[in-house]
Amino acid sequence: MTREDGREVDQLRPVEMTKDYVKFAEGSVLIRCGDTVVLCNASVEDKVPPHVREGHGWVTAEYSMLPRANRQRSRRDIDKLKLNGRSAEIQRLIGRSLRAAVDLEALGERTVTVDCDVLQGDGGTRTASITGGFVALALACRKLLREGKVERNPIVHQVAAVSAGIIDDVPMLDLPYSEDSRAQVDLNCVMNEQGELIEIQGTGEGRSFTLSEQQELVRLCGKGIAELMEKQREMLR
Amino acid sequence: MTREDGREVDQLRPVEMTKDYVKFAEGSVLIRCGDTVVLCNASVEDKVPPHVREGHGWVTAEYSMLPRANRQRSRRDIDKLKLNGRSAEIQRLIGRSLRAAVDLEALGERTVTVDCDVLQGDGGTRTASITGGFVALALACRKLLREGKVERNPIVHQVAAVSAGIIDDVPMLDLPYSEDSRAQVDLNCVMNEQGELIEIQGTGEGRSFTLSEQQELVRLCGKGIAELMEKQREMLR
Amino acid sequence: MTREDGREVDQLRPVEMTKDYVKFAEGSVLIRCGDTVVLCNASVEDKVPPHVREGHGWVTAEYSMLPRANRQRSRRDIDKLKLNGRSAEIQRLIGRSLRAAVDLEALGERTVTVDCDVLQGDGGTRTASITGGFVALALACRKLLREGKVERNPIVHQVAAVSAGIIDDVPMLDLPYSEDSRAQVDLNCVMNEQGELIEIQGTGEGRSFTLSEQQELVRLCGKGIAELMEKQREMLR
Amino acid sequence: MTREDGREVDQLRPVEMTKDYVKFAEGSVLIRCGDTVVLCNASVEDKVPPHVREGHGWVTAEYSMLPRANRQRSRRDIDKLKLNGRSAEIQRLIGRSLRAAVDLEALGERTVTVDCDVLQGDGGTRTASITGGFVALALACRKLLREGKVERNPIVHQVAAVSAGIIDDVPMLDLPYSEDSRAQVDLNCVMNEQGELIEIQGTGEGRSFTLSEQQELVRLCGKGIAELMEKQREMLR
Amino acid sequence: MTREDGREVDQLRPVEMTKDYVKFAEGSVLIRCGDTVVLCNASVEDKVPPHVREGHGWVTAEYSMLPRANRQRSRRDIDKLKLNGRSAEIQRLIGRSLRAAVDLEALGERTVTVDCDVLQGDGGTRTASITGGFVALALACRKLLREGKVERNPIVHQVAAVSAGIIDDVPMLDLPYSEDSRAQVDLNCVMNEQGELIEIQGTGEGRSFTLSEQQELVRLCGKGIAELMEKQREMLR
Amino acid sequence: MTREDGREVDQLRPVEMTKDYVKFAEGSVLIRCGDTVVLCNASVEDKVPPHVREGHGWVTAEYSMLPRANRQRSRRDIDKLKLNGRSAEIQRLIGRSLRAAVDLEALGERTVTVDCDVLQGDGGTRTASITGGFVALALACRKLLREGKVERNPIVHQVAAVSAGIIDDVPMLDLPYSEDSRAQVDLNCVMNEQGELIEIQGTGEGRSFTLSEQQELVRLCGKGIAELMEKQREMLR
Repeated sequence: MTREDGREVDQLRPVEMTKDYVKFAEGSVLIRCGDTVVLCNASVEDKVPPHVREGHGWVTAEYSMLPRANRQRSRRDIDKLKLNGRSAEIQRLIGRSLRAAVDLEALGERTVTVDCDVLQGDGGTRTASITGGFVALALACRKLLREGKVERNPIVHQVAAVSAGIIDDVPMLDLPYSEDSRAQVDLNCVMNEQGELIEIQGTGEGRSFTLSEQQELVRLCGKGIAELMEKQREMLR
Repeated sequence: MTREDGREVDQLRPVEMTKDYVKFAEGSVLIRCGDTVVLCNASVEDKVPPHVREGHGWVTAEYSMLPRANRQRSRRDIDKLKLNGRSAEIQRLIGRSLRAAVDLEALGERTVTVDCDVLQGDGGTRTASITGGFVALALACRKLLREGKVERNPIVHQVAAVSAGIIDDVPMLDLPYSEDSRAQVDLNCVMNEQGELIEIQGTGEGRSFTLSEQQELVRLCGKGIAELMEKQREMLR
Repeated sequence: MTREDGREVDQLRPVEMTKDYVKFAEGSVLIRCGDTVVLCNASVEDKVPPHVREGHGWVTAEYSMLPRANRQRSRRDIDKLKLNGRSAEIQRLIGRSLRAAVDLEALGERTVTVDCDVLQGDGGTRTASITGGFVALALACRKLLREGKVERNPIVHQVAAVSAGIIDDVPMLDLPYSEDSRAQVDLNCVMNEQGELIEIQGTGEGRSFTLSEQQELVRLCGKGIAELMEKQREMLR
Repeated sequence: MTREDGREVDQLRPVEMTKDYVKFAEGSVLIRCGDTVVLCNASVEDKVPPHVREGHGWVTAEYSMLPRANRQRSRRDIDKLKLNGRSAEIQRLIGRSLRAAVDLEALGERTVTVDCDVLQGDGGTRTASITGGFVALALACRKLLREGKVERNPIVHQVAAVSAGIIDDVPMLDLPYSEDSRAQVDLNCVMNEQGELIEIQGTGEGRSFTLSEQQELVRLCGKGIAELMEKQREMLR
Repeated sequence: MTREDGREVDQLRPVEMTKDYVKFAEGSVLIRCGDTVVLCNASVEDKVPPHVREGHGWVTAEYSMLPRANRQRSRRDIDKLKLNGRSAEIQRLIGRSLRAAVDLEALGERTVTVDCDVLQGDGGTRTASITGGFVALALACRKLLREGKVERNPIVHQVAAVSAGIIDDVPMLDLPYSEDSRAQVDLNCVMNEQGELIEIQGTGEGRSFTLSEQQELVRLCGKGIAELMEKQREMLR
Repeated sequence: MTREDGREVDQLRPVEMTKDYVKFAEGSVLIRCGDTVVLCNASVEDKVPPHVREGHGWVTAEYSMLPRANRQRSRRDIDKLKLNGRSAEIQRLIGRSLRAAVDLEALGERTVTVDCDVLQGDGGTRTASITGGFVALALACRKLLREGKVERNPIVHQVAAVSAGIIDDVPMLDLPYSEDSRAQVDLNCVMNEQGELIEIQGTGEGRSFTLSEQQELVRLCGKGIAELMEKQREMLR
């Protein structure tokens, strides 16, 4: 079975990352996964939010779509005076995922904010944000190490993410919007370099799914994530 | 191995539901799961949001914690002028889960809003909201049927939810706050009456988890959900 | 003349209070006056707002209705990004009334916030909030005393409140919604244990009222408040 | 006993009104009561809010203080993104009071908004807003009548307001800020041309008050309001 | 060629300033330019925003229109929860213009906020705000000097502003609303006592304009500003 | 005299535009002026705001900086719940400038919104937004023409913009941030294809400027704009 764009069911869309896309950020990556384009910028500040344990750092993320990233123009959050609920959900996921990559004690009392701004959205923007955001975060941490601000690299795990879904009862990897909008089940996985799970979020859209279907989707994601991690390592070499 | 409160690892906290807690709502349930107390009220309105297909209805949810539901008083959202990010994430989950129970065409052009207000929070508030919210929703639908406003019951699936987690490497069902705050992995399942998955959300807190650990957590949730559904059916009898 | 619910014109609706309804708050009371149900939680924090005199404490209140406390569902304040004007007015009244009960110097540099959340509203929610809120406040102060945090009880007066109104030219005590909505005059009294006034707010709805009518309404309120204070004392015994 | 400014206890501050202060408003009055200065503008719009009965009109008020109306500059509401709670309370009072002057059916399906902007505040701003706002409202209604937009004058009552208070146990009329800030009791009355009450709001500040004290304060207000109404009639002659 | 109101093309509308209009502000001026009326109040506070250099002060401005300053009533910013874009633009212009008058080091670590509230708008409100605001600012600085809080007068330049425009291809000075609304080009100048430019903002409305037209408009403004400065000096004498 | 980056005083930074950067927008251009990078997307919607004359269209703009477009990360507007005052000012300028290019009647009852999102800011972001935004707008209009939705091209003028400033008393064209931050005078020009002015905004920063200095800055801008228009025409060929 082949797909609209001719890919195999377990094949990723073409992935491309541009390092140092923006010159001011401590870490900056423009990631393209098919037609999805996300600018991921990591910023380091020498302070932490009040809830953080003394001597530790913090990693957080913000996610937003430019108004014309999609087929229809959407109003800016500030115009509606409300952070979009979907954005709120996604940026919490990105933040948790990236924190899993970091030894917050090694980071010291500083915050890394990873801004993920979607320039063009064609499905999989949250997972692209995690995959690209990890590289931006790693670049920022490397800079801290190079400048002697941290003693050891705070990055202790590699983290990447991808989605999979079930369409016409067939599990498939890395859905673009045209597939995503008619998927029966949609599942996002965040994994580390050992292929272990950090986050998993699955949703039945129109139908429920069995534990064995869920396993098959995780397996597909595992394959995709292994390939994405290869790309990440190239960027960081 | 027994737990702080003497439960077995696969044992639910005591669950209790009070039907018609509030007299004005079309469906109203006060649910207690251990020390977690959530008031779930379903309200029916004869209009739908613009994105809904013609002739179809909509089901949505709102989630909020009273300021003193927790150990520390938290400021109200309106005082900060921002919907709490965690609330935004949770109410999207509740909304998706409850929509999976309903035939939106049978519901007709009306919206059911399920308000889940946490009076006391001790872990598992989002899953209690789904389990109690389903009953409130079902009561409201039954009222529509009784009054002849719908031709057939829009409820086509039973839906309930519970959490499980890994503590000291032991998978356990239905964590109260004291366990949740030191869990290594935290996973929420929403299932239907066939034990199939509607939503799954798992998070590694401090460590990653394997696919087989994840399966064991889903199995535990499945056991708990079967028992919760028995309680729901009692309420609706 | 008897009323819809069979009460005498000077008779209160049945009043019931549940102490320690919520386990985390320093003081917690669920008060029912007829079908009006308000959860009153008092929270103590070791800081005061900037305007407070050194060495003194502060007592403040917040008031809110759950979305489905009424016949029609109302949108949450956060959804409209505005504190309801009526809520703003009411919480200022509750705050002033409860401060009249307290020696702020004896309280020391701490703030007691009394959250009054209306679970079900059937008239008289602001006066029920004051009557129940006083008990929550007194419980919290007693806890401070028991724990040796204050040297003497900051509670120096007992405070309770009730409404009265004129319907078909007949003054009546404690109006439920069905009466309130057709009252010609509506008056709220807050009094202390000596039957003296702390707050009085009277409004002509559709007609004006004379000073002697106003006096008769205050007299009715005085009778009702004496009975409410008896209930409060039972709770605090 | 004489007062700081030499007035008798039952004597008003000098009152002065300037008609048509602003040229665009349908009714406009600048009122000065001592050093309190409020600009009251009545605007007529040919629509009503949704809650208004068909064929009827609506009267509403907005109240605000300019940032430097007081001894200290205060931040604008828009800077804090919140309508001041005190302003919310006051504008509801003004609105209710002015509606008592109007036959809303005679007004027809239009809204009169009375904006009360305090240019300088020295006590009694809410009562000055009602007294001046009534004249602005009456001017706007007269204009409607003159232009044949209404068949009969919608104004059916004259409305004015003043405050009184107890200082060092002496009841006094019309307190400026210097007296108000040390008053033991503060009471506002809104009355009609028959000396009957439309609104009464009394607050004990630091001590409670008896029913007979309250009556004496109402009596003082009644005397002041009679004089204010004389001024209003001069303006409208 | 004469104009609607009989003025010559290079003639100002009648200007009138009332000093100390409000008694609490450190500097207060009510300015009338024709039918445009702006209340300008300067407030001094002993703190500066974080971006200000140590040992220096700050001057800032806020601009707002009362709801009924214009032909149509406009909703308050707080009602829409948004600072009007036009107000935001104007208050930035006023702030920059007034800072050009001040030696911020001589001012010391304090902020002067100049509130410009338009009571009635008939064209030229932003330039009237600058002209009147300068006088309020100068009065406040003089008070600081008189009280020995600053060693030398922080005012080092005189600043005033006026608009000019092109109507039916004729350049004219100081447009009221009726002219402004059909102007082809609209230009505002802020100048100092040497006739040099501090700010210039020109806009083609419906057509573009040449450099020589622009020069002619600046020349007209220069003439008007010289006259306005004479009025300012009278006020400050 | 040469500059930091070796340019002549009347030389533009290298300009580069990428057409169709985003695939969904009706017109899309990524413009780079030196290190300033702005994504300009034009979106067409078949409705107009209420203030627009019947049968006419509307052109508007929104401007925003990504959080890490600058040396320091700035908080998002939505995080502060306020549209940045500087952004409000700039987007009004862009909107007015682009409307000068369009025959709104030929556009018909539709709105073109040009979103200008600054990915990297190094001075001149507002003028780059106008220059790039014009091309995006022209592409969108051309698409309307190609699809037969308009009868004639609504674009009737070519519009571009650039800044100039005075540094160490030397007028210079097109300042990057390092020059802009120490400029004595800063001036932005928007012109059409005939070299006529559409908008001019000049500001003295620390000193005033003469009319002849202003003319020299306009002359410099005129030269730069002619070159920018050549680039625009290449894009649109």
